[in-house]
Amino acid sequence: MNAAPNKGELSRQAILRTALEQARKIGLEGLTIGSLADVLQRSKSGVFAHFGSREDLQLAVIEEGARQFIDEVFVPALKEKRGLPRLRALFKGWLRRVCDLEAGGCIFVEAAAEFGNSDGPIKEKVADLQGQWRTQLTKAIELTVQASPKSSADPEQLAFEIFSLVLGVHHDARMFGDPKTWMRRGDAAFERLVQAHDLTPT
Amino acid sequence: MNAAPNKGELSRQAILRTALEQARKIGLEGLTIGSLADVLQRSKSGVFAHFGSREDLQLAVIEEGARQFIDEVFVPALKEKRGLPRLRALFKGWLRRVCDLEAGGCIFVEAAAEFGNSDGPIKEKVADLQGQWRTQLTKAIELTVQASPKSSADPEQLAFEIFSLVLGVHHDARMFGDPKTWMRRGDAAFERLVQAHDLTPT
Repeated sequence: MNAAPNKGELSRQAILRTALEQARKIGLEGLTIGSLADVLQRSKSGVFAHFGSREDLQLAVIEEGARQFIDEVFVPALKEKRGLPRLRALFKGWLRRVCDLEAGGCIFVEAAAEFGNSDGPIKEKVADLQGQWRTQLTKAIELTVQASPKSSADPEQLAFEIFSLVLGVHHDARMFGDPKTWMRRGDAAFERLVQAHDLTPT
Repeated sequence: MNAAPNKGELSRQAILRTALEQARKIGLEGLTIGSLADVLQRSKSGVFAHFGSREDLQLAVIEEGARQFIDEVFVPALKEKRGLPRLRALFKGWLRRVCDLEAGGCIFVEAAAEFGNSDGPIKEKVADLQGQWRTQLTKAIELTVQASPKSSADPEQLAFEIFSLVLGVHHDARMFGDPKTWMRRGDAAFERLVQAHDLTPT
């Protein structure tokens, strides 16, 4: 029998989901306990009780963003065969997510731009989670290279390039509209990388 | 004989340079007439007289950012021979600029993240200037492809990929530190693109 979820925790989770939705549209800098209380039609003190400070709220929103990313992009891709099928699934799921303009931007891309030039707990948290994701991406590439006898690709270099393509699609879809065009350009660049580095599925 | 610069104009220019320095470090969202007046040790009304509103100030800062970029990256590259030498000079100058962590981030990357999910004059201005730069970059690539008899590269696709690499270097240098590593990875990716697309200097 499962334990019933703690009522306070459930509510914190619901607040966090809404806070993340907000932050993806207006940025973490725009997110305040007051503005969130307005959207949720709750008292400011009710939201405050869950987070204590604006920075705690921002940090929790970043963690919620990572959790959603793992659920929606990483875990589904793990169902694919390791090597190129899994790497391609990771890339395509990631592109789909950054091309969802309705949902707002990627919380990590936004936070990196907003907090990247300052020191502090938010930059540290974003850098830590981005570093973890980069490690996972590099591992997926390593498995792909290992399964490709003719490939001599450098997984870290490829991880940098694939990450760059996603940043490019994220940027262009927002600045120039027409996300399908940029998703197609991202896909084309990925497939060219696969060819250039002899990443053959086995 | 040159006309003496208008004193009001000179001062506006000086305010703008400081405002751009500030915005590259704290983001356009953090830039207010009040905070700028503090840094400049001027009265808020003195700064206000030059810009009228915070949004006017933000728009002027974006234009100043474009002007500096043209001066520091675009114009020097025009001295190189058209084709690959000029394209490479553009890319290298651009990377150097985004790797200057002391100067803060690229105002366009930051503004795209901060305003990319909303509509309004700031997003419009950034999208317009980014579009102009993309057009110039695409032209430089077209000239390079024309000068490379074996190349059948699609200049727009290459412009997207080169732009993505710069975004990647900008991101990683801030999130993971050690800008030289990312500049080297960016350079390696660029040279691989040049090879893969048979972009030979003539």
